[in-house]
Amino acid sequence: MTTEQQHASLDVVLVRPRNPLNIGAAARACANFGFTRLTVVDPYDPTWRAACSAVDAEFLLASARLTSTLAEAVATATLVLGTGSVDRRKSEQPVVALPALAPVVAQELAGAGRVALVFGSEKHGLTREDLAWCHQLVAIPTSPLQPSMNLGQSVAVCLYELATRVPAFAGDNHILPADTAASLPAPDPADTHPVMQDLDRLASLIEETMAAARYSPASMRAANEHDLRLALRRMAFTRHDMRRALGLFRRILWRIGH
Amino acid sequence: MTTEQQHASLDVVLVRPRNPLNIGAAARACANFGFTRLTVVDPYDPTWRAACSAVDAEFLLASARLTSTLAEAVATATLVLGTGSVDRRKSEQPVVALPALAPVVAQELAGAGRVALVFGSEKHGLTREDLAWCHQLVAIPTSPLQPSMNLGQSVAVCLYELATRVPAFAGDNHILPADTAASLPAPDPADTHPVMQDLDRLASLIEETMAAARYSPASMRAANEHDLRLALRRMAFTRHDMRRALGLFRRILWRIGH
Repeated sequence: MTTEQQHASLDVVLVRPRNPLNIGAAARACANFGFTRLTVVDPYDPTWRAACSAVDAEFLLASARLTSTLAEAVATATLVLGTGSVDRRKSEQPVVALPALAPVVAQELAGAGRVALVFGSEKHGLTREDLAWCHQLVAIPTSPLQPSMNLGQSVAVCLYELATRVPAFAGDNHILPADTAASLPAPDPADTHPVMQDLDRLASLIEETMAAARYSPASMRAANEHDLRLALRRMAFTRHDMRRALGLFRRILWRIGH
Repeated sequence: MTTEQQHASLDVVLVRPRNPLNIGAAARACANFGFTRLTVVDPYDPTWRAACSAVDAEFLLASARLTSTLAEAVATATLVLGTGSVDRRKSEQPVVALPALAPVVAQELAGAGRVALVFGSEKHGLTREDLAWCHQLVAIPTSPLQPSMNLGQSVAVCLYELATRVPAFAGDNHILPADTAASLPAPDPADTHPVMQDLDRLASLIEETMAAARYSPASMRAANEHDLRLALRRMAFTRHDMRRALGLFRRILWRIGH
């Protein structure tokens, strides 16, 4: 199965959104994380028209699907996940915390399943009736002082988690896998570390400068030189930095000498 | 250290936001994930007033800090992280993918450090000038077809990642730990990062030294200062190194002056 098909096997479903900005924000989050299937259930009609006419949203919403019921929206899914904040309700479904969701989704996709991720309206979230269509409830861990998230932000957070931590999604070449550190383009040679002999040359110049400027008493010299050598190795000099530093200390020595 | 104090050791910094809705959304994301420190740098003035007068935003923005420069906003931070999408620019800073960021932040907090997470304006993100204040660039992995995220959504995604995957934040009873990493040993205070204002003090001293030593023509000064700021942030100065370096350059300046 290709990545495109994998990304297509997740449906983002918005139930009765009221605010056109939130529909646009949800569509943008889908596009940001490479998900292509957005379904809007029973939108407040002026909202839908406003969302569709918003700048830039046309492209994002053109392929969105409209349904009148949640049942219809999730009809072809094999796993339906409702979203909410943990403490909003006593759930009748099993609750999985968002940071622990990836393996659940990965397993479903491995079995050629289809996953629907369902978001409720801004005011009330998913109703008990909506939740009856859900196998599990995904809890975004939020502070008890402000548990309720903005709709567009909660869509973004959920899709970020899945795009980076479900291997089938993260394997796409443009989404960096979570566990491996960012694989970066090969650095410019000027950005690579200087050879050790340049570090030692710099250390010598700084020592000479310290002596010329009478930075410390002679009795401290050995200890200072030791610390300096350690410090220079710890610092991530590039070759470019090294050339600058050598030039600067040569110049300083010349000035002090005149 | 209690969780509240830990949450207080991360600053969210918005640079020149234009849209009041985005300021409100960023403030809400902070509250959702238990972060209490929000700084807004040089907001477009009508924007700031509109954001503050928006429904529900008063409570969230009441404790926000306003500064006129990014330098001021990050003055007491020990690690400054810029945010952006990977492919927007060839970075002059090391890039870390957001899913790999938690250990970096955890280590900084273990050393009693303060982290600033910096977001650029809606239109252009962080400028090259802004990025010169950053040690590292955090890349949110997004699709090349739609790499640019909404400001409020990118704040939410970053704070979700840190709130759930940095043990010091996730340890709070309401945020479920993603995978409990071993607690890091506390480093020697002398080995921890210096605060930004010390780095800036050193940068100023070196600039003065360059001028006093006539290191380069005046026409090169701005470029040199930019490079110097980048280089100092890349180098892993400890507080101890910093004291030495400040002392040395003060001494050099004094010698050149006599």
